[in-house]
This record gives sequence, C-alpha cells and structure tokens, in this order.
Amino acid sequence: MGMSQPIRVTVWNEFRHEQSDAHIRAVYPEGIHRAIAEYLEDQPGFSVQTATLDEPEHGLTEDVLAETDVLIWWGHQAHAAVEDEIVDRVHARVLDGMGLICLHSSHFSKIFKKLMGTTCNLKWRELGENERLWVVEPGHPIAAGVGQYIDIPHEEMYGEFFDIPEPDTLVFISWFPGGEVFRSGCCYHRGRGKVFYFRPGHESFPTFYQAEVRHVIANAARWAATTDGPEIVYGNVQPLEEVTVSA
Amino acid sequence: MGMSQPIRVTVWNEFRHEQSDAHIRAVYPEGIHRAIAEYLEDQPGFSVQTATLDEPEHGLTEDVLAETDVLIWWGHQAHAAVEDEIVDRVHARVLDGMGLICLHSSHFSKIFKKLMGTTCNLKWRELGENERLWVVEPGHPIAAGVGQYIDIPHEEMYGEFFDIPEPDTLVFISWFPGGEVFRSGCCYHRGRGKVFYFRPGHESFPTFYQAEVRHVIANAARWAATTDGPEIVYGNVQPLEEVTVSA
Amino acid sequence: MGMSQPIRVTVWNEFRHEQSDAHIRAVYPEGIHRAIAEYLEDQPGFSVQTATLDEPEHGLTEDVLAETDVLIWWGHQAHAAVEDEIVDRVHARVLDGMGLICLHSSHFSKIFKKLMGTTCNLKWRELGENERLWVVEPGHPIAAGVGQYIDIPHEEMYGEFFDIPEPDTLVFISWFPGGEVFRSGCCYHRGRGKVFYFRPGHESFPTFYQAEVRHVIANAARWAATTDGPEIVYGNVQPLEEVTVSA
Amino acid sequence: MGMSQPIRVTVWNEFRHEQSDAHIRAVYPEGIHRAIAEYLEDQPGFSVQTATLDEPEHGLTEDVLAETDVLIWWGHQAHAAVEDEIVDRVHARVLDGMGLICLHSSHFSKIFKKLMGTTCNLKWRELGENERLWVVEPGHPIAAGVGQYIDIPHEEMYGEFFDIPEPDTLVFISWFPGGEVFRSGCCYHRGRGKVFYFRPGHESFPTFYQAEVRHVIANAARWAATTDGPEIVYGNVQPLEEVTVSA
Repeated sequence: MGMSQPIRVTVWNEFRHEQSDAHIRAVYPEGIHRAIAEYLEDQPGFSVQTATLDEPEHGLTEDVLAETDVLIWWGHQAHAAVEDEIVDRVHARVLDGMGLICLHSSHFSKIFKKLMGTTCNLKWRELGENERLWVVEPGHPIAAGVGQYIDIPHEEMYGEFFDIPEPDTLVFISWFPGGEVFRSGCCYHRGRGKVFYFRPGHESFPTFYQAEVRHVIANAARWAATTDGPEIVYGNVQPLEEVTVSA
Repeated sequence: MGMSQPIRVTVWNEFRHEQSDAHIRAVYPEGIHRAIAEYLEDQPGFSVQTATLDEPEHGLTEDVLAETDVLIWWGHQAHAAVEDEIVDRVHARVLDGMGLICLHSSHFSKIFKKLMGTTCNLKWRELGENERLWVVEPGHPIAAGVGQYIDIPHEEMYGEFFDIPEPDTLVFISWFPGGEVFRSGCCYHRGRGKVFYFRPGHESFPTFYQAEVRHVIANAARWAATTDGPEIVYGNVQPLEEVTVSA
Repeated sequence: MGMSQPIRVTVWNEFRHEQSDAHIRAVYPEGIHRAIAEYLEDQPGFSVQTATLDEPEHGLTEDVLAETDVLIWWGHQAHAAVEDEIVDRVHARVLDGMGLICLHSSHFSKIFKKLMGTTCNLKWRELGENERLWVVEPGHPIAAGVGQYIDIPHEEMYGEFFDIPEPDTLVFISWFPGGEVFRSGCCYHRGRGKVFYFRPGHESFPTFYQAEVRHVIANAARWAATTDGPEIVYGNVQPLEEVTVSA
Repeated sequence: MGMSQPIRVTVWNEFRHEQSDAHIRAVYPEGIHRAIAEYLEDQPGFSVQTATLDEPEHGLTEDVLAETDVLIWWGHQAHAAVEDEIVDRVHARVLDGMGLICLHSSHFSKIFKKLMGTTCNLKWRELGENERLWVVEPGHPIAAGVGQYIDIPHEEMYGEFFDIPEPDTLVFISWFPGGEVFRSGCCYHRGRGKVFYFRPGHESFPTFYQAEVRHVIANAARWAATTDGPEIVYGNVQPLEEVTVSA
C-alpha cells in the first residue's frame, strides 16, 4: 500500500495577488503555495513541490504531473489565464489516478468546472465573518483528528446554492453568521482519481496558517493520493470465455 | 402512473401533548395530525385519514396500512409506548413500498431508528430561534415551488452531528442563528419504499400552519407515494436460462 | 405540480445511419427519433416533437429548448458534428431545469461528457447478445411497472469500467452472457435539472420498439421533467438579516 | 494518522459448520476465521485475533471490542444464536468508530441487518458457478492492487434484488453465468464507523485462500479501521456564541 513511499504533492498557486497587492503580500509574503507547502513539508510521509501560473506550462509539465500523487490548486482572479491544454492534461491525469484538492475560489477554476460538469457558481460576501465548519461524516479519514467543528475567525462567506454535483461524500457543512450554509468539504471519485473541494482560504485572511485547516489539507492529501487501482481497458473486447451453467 | 388515483395518506400523531398541555393545545387544538391533514385534504390528489397512538393498534391495523400509500409520522415523548409489533408492521410495509415521512422529533421514533440503523441522535436547543432551510438540490420534486430558502420564525434548534446514514438525496440544510447547521430534508430509498425526514415541527410553535412547510410536506407525500415497482422474488432460484455466446 | 400540463418532450436523433445504411433503415425506416416519439405520443401527458442533427442549429434553437421539459438524445457516429455552441446551449438549459435522457451510444455525446466531467468510456462488443437489466432500486419511479428485470434479446454489449461519476441513483445494472456487467440506468441531478442515462438502443436492433424499453423511457421522461424549483441567485449578497440569540 | 500503530483486527466466525460437517472441515480444517487470520497475520500493519460463536459472550467481550479497530464477521446457519445483547454491543461499537466487514452469508447476520435497517434478503443458488467481480470504483482504496475484475472459479450465486440501502460507495459488481448480477462490494459510513459488505466466501469453496479475495479483505480492513474522528456531543447545547454581522 505504499505506506513507506512518500506522497508526492504539488501545490499550485495562481501567485499573482501576492505580488500585485501589498495587503495580500503581507498575509502570504511567499505566496499561498508556500504557506501550504511549508506545513506539508513538516509532516511525515510527504514529498512537496510547488508550481505557479506564470511558470512555463504553469509549472505543470507532463513530467511534473506524472510524478505527482496529489495536486493542490488555488486560483482566483486568473482562472482564464490557465491554458486549456494544461487543463486537459491535468484532467486526464486526475482520471488516471492523481488526487486533486481544490481550495476556496478554485471552485471557479477551469479544472474544477470541467471535472464537475456544472457552473460551480455560488453566493459570496466579503465581510470577514466567522466560518464554522461542522463535521457531518465523522468516520471519514479527512475528519480524523478534527473536533466537532472548526472555527475560522475571519473568512469570506460562500453560500448555497452551490452548483455542484451531489458529493460522493460530504464531510463538512459550513455555517456563517449572516444566514448561510455551504457544503464546504466535498469528496468525489472521478475515473481512477479522487477530488476534494475544501472551501476555506481567502487570500486576505491567514486561513492557511490555521492549524486545523492545515491538518484537514494534509488529511485530504492522504485520502486523495494515487492508489494502485486497476489499469482500465476500454474499447472492443471479446467475450471473456465460454461459460455454461447447468442446474 | 396513477395520476388519476388519489394518494392515500395516513397522518399519524402521538397526540398526547395536545391533550395534556394547555400551551400546546392552544397551538394545535385538534392535534398536529389534524393541522397536517386539513391542508392535504384541500390539495387535489390526496385522500387523507389520521391515526393516533392511543387508538387500538395505534390506529395502524393491517388494513389501514394496506390502504396507505404514504404514512406521515409525528411523535415526541411517547416513542417507547409504540408497540414493537406495530413498528415491525410499519417497517415491513415501508420495505414493500409505502412511503414514510418522519417529522421533527420523530427522528427518535422506533420506526425511523429501525429503518436508519443508527442512533439518530442530535443536538437540540429550545429558544425559538429562526430556522432557515436552504434548498441544496433544486431539481428535486420536494423542492418544487419552494424559494431558495424557507424561513421559520421560531423553531426548536437541531444541530449536527445528526447520526443518520448519508441521505440518498439531501434536499435541505438548515441554518440556525446560534451557530448550527442541520441536514433537514433527507431522502432515502429502503426496499421498495421511500423515506423522507423533514426537520421542522416542534409542538409549541405553529410550524405546521406555515404555507411553505405544508407545501413541502405535500411535495414529499407525492414523491414518497407507492409506485408500482417490481414484485421482488427472494430465495433459491434456477439459472435463468442456458446462454451461450460465440465470438 | 402541473399534472394537467403535458410534459413537452423533444426527441433528438443524429439520424444519419438510417439514411446511409439500408440495414439500419430497415430497422428504423423513419429514424430512431420517430420510433421513440410515436410511443410517447400515444401516452397520456406528453407533447412530443423531434429534432435532428442536420436541421439548422441541429433543431435545437433557443426557442425549442425554452419550450422543452425533457430532451431525449440519441447519437453515435457524428458526435463531433454537433456544434459546441449548441452543446453549451443544451448544457445551460439542463442546469436551468430541463431534463436530459441520453440513450446508448450517447454516452460519448459532447453534452453527456460535458455534464459528467469524465471520459464516459467503456467496453463494447457487437454480437447481439441477450442483455438483462436488473432493477436495483425498485422504489424509484423509473422502475414503476417494470418486472424484476428486462430481457432484450439482442443488443450490443457495454461493459465496465464505465467512466462516469457514481450515479446519484442507480436504477438498473445490466448482465451480458459474455461475462460483463454495466451500470445501465443512471440518475443524476445537475443544477436545477436531471439527467438519466439508459444503456439499451443499438441502431441495428429493434430495441426501441420493445414495450419494456419504451415504458422505461416514458417513466424517465416523467422523472426528468422540469419541476418548478427555486430560481437561484448567485453572486454577492448581503447578510440576510441581523440575527441575535440569547440563551 | 497512526501509520505506525498496527490495525487491531478481530476475525469472528460462527465456526460450527467446520466442526459438524466433514466436507466443510476438509476445506477449512481450522475454521474460516483462521483462514482469514493467517493471511492478515502475514501482512505488515495488522495485529490479529479471532473469536467464535461458542466462546463466552461469543468471544466479543467489552474488552475485546474496545481493543478492536476492525471486526470481520462470518456467519451462516446460526445467526439466531447470536445474543441480542452482544449484537447491541457490536452495534454501539461500530457507531463509535470500529470498522465492520461482513462476509458472504453474514448479509443475514443480526448485526448487518440492524445496521442496514432492511431485510438484506437476496436470491441464491448453489451450483458452484464462476463469479466475476468487476471493479466499478477504481480509485477506491479497497480496489488498490486489484485487476479489472476478480474471477472466483466456484462460488454460491447471490442475485439482485439485494435489499440493502444504496451503498455510500459501490466498489464491486458481481456477474454470474446463470444470468444474475449482484452489488458485491458495498461501503457504508454509520456513525463514526465504517461497514464493508463483501459477497464471496461460501463455506464449501476455498474462496478465503484465494489471493485476490484475501487482498481485498486486507484492503477493506485498512479502509474500515478506526480513525480518530471527532468525539460527538449530543443533547441540549447552548448557542455557541453571540455572533453579529454588519454589512
């Protein structure tokens, strides 16, 4: 089961806000990707690299993806700048077994929308409200070591209706004081791969430094990591054998 | 599809609170069952009767159940007074195709717990908070004619974790101002039957007079009503036929 | 609930095989769309029209879609000839509430793949094997009036792994004598709409004249038909109100 | 995540057939439990013990269960001999986080029926047919290291309709030559625990010596093992805090 092999994580970030906006740079001076990567690097069992939008091929070459077990994705304002060819490459790699964790505003990333098949639209409000994420599937590995809920003191609000397919497993539901709820931890199988959407992580708040949030991301990476599932054959096949049954 | 046949609904109520407690009688002078039944009687396509705990066989004789397409259930303090034999009878009838709608405190009824296989436990608080039920599956027939959310001005709070199996379809998630969320509209297939759990309806509030709540209950009754599904054969069977394939 | 309003069905067919291949024309002289439409026209509660690939805008103008409650889709060899603009139009209409029923080789249609987010690939074999579709959710309205299984004497085989998201509800599983199984009746909610994939219907076999198959398609059309679900608001919203709670 | 802690497995077996019937004793001379346990003992990461029906408290004392992460269950003819008190104890322990793997004829065990809430009835036939289990969720950890399908040369047939709740995740579907299909690898979350039903394993066939079957059971034990999920609080709670939001 590869327990002794590290899980190879690539943390992808748009990484523009942090360079263009002093307020956001103050929160994430090295970029959101580094805030996530530095935590995972300190955990046993992970091998971590990062990639960003403005690198060649967005840092997501065939080689990088081939050696990635879990891709973590954060994007916000530049979704349209991600090349369709790279999106298709990531999509194929997910269906072939790579895990994908889409964070916060990545609900509108090309790759998440392509995998979901829906608009992934939602309601939002940016007042820095207290988000409370309730665990609703306490036996799921992504909830291991988590309390009954996670409080994030200041976050952007996302509210239902969230236009996604019903999750295969719903792990968290968020509560916001202004009157909204949100399906905020959503597991999907797609092809041989797994996808986890996790709601928190607005660029103007220090969410990715919060211990519980980091812990959930690490849990999710373990859950989503490539497993050695069957190699699938498609296309024209012969009858598997002559079978007869007699009573 | 039986569109011209009325859906035969039996509304079951514990009907003790309304007799023992003047405050509750003031809200539901004829009992909660009548508040629900009177609405359904006014809608086209329903044939409605009621049954209560203190009737012989709790009003749920073999004959009554055989002629019931949807059983609506409200209980609270006297769950233990429901005879196991009647619970088993209702259970068998659900698996054979009768719909069951369990309301509010019926999460702790014997029949709901038996069908769920879990404790059905939850958090609660009785401050008369504003409940807001968000639709999270807007194409489901139970959400037909409903707005984005339903506000109930005063309700008992129920909070997660709600110890139920993951719903086959989750239609509503409730928000409460005190910090909780709740999966408040839950659809299940069980055997040839269908079960809907709907959270609102505390005995001290006039919830069952509210138009949106009544509308959802009628939608749920239409969804849960017996369909003419296959008669199932169990047990020892012969191979269905000799089958050969040649490439 | 609109019981008195007919369900407006548009049956869409590629309609090329029937014109180019005498063998297929012999089976479906007026086209597969007409074989399906003629049955629905005879059922109460439907208003039926057809549309085909080679009509302007593939027969799927904004006006046609706006007045369609359920779109039934059959395509096979000319998936690539369907304009992306029309696919996007159908996609948007499904998310807005229109039902979509994709038949057989339409698993590879652009619209189905776009809604699923996966390759929708599978195994296949064309020996005219006996397909047996077992009902595995007997309380679902699509299984109403169906026996324990449906036997289709001669069909193309489709086998797992079928690269689709786990269905919201799985109604049928097919058995083939050559050794394969297939998830052959798959329900999905997408946005405010509903999608049903139904496996049978190869162009060289008279499947769409078989009573049980026609019955399932009619059931599916009733299940998938637009319901009057909530109009969804997306985007920036205000906190719904000031809410305070005191213990 | 406890990767360094062994998973504590208890293999429970009715263990009567093997003592009363020479033919079955010839297949499993030390009992089915030992055939399963001996494999797990050889795998890294497991600590294994066994328990059987005729031990005091069926070998399932409070202490044993408290120190069990995964309970594997095989029963057939003596389901009724399992004391209700022990069933309730196992049930409570599953809801509190223990994994449960029910094998083959254990579909009719008291504990499985209690957790499912349905009859768990099915069709069966004992001709020693070839069972072929197809993987339909290739990214699930229970399918890790498995081929596209598993062939078991001789098994009892089980056929649909299998009266269970729709699995949270369906990993395997079985094909039988006599014309049947069966949902044969079914995952459920229940409370803080996880349940896996796995179909193969008739007492008269050497199924539990087959490498692929053993491999799946080990995968399932890893998947089902207790995770350190949130301790749940039920009952009356205070509003979590005073929250105010201003636009």
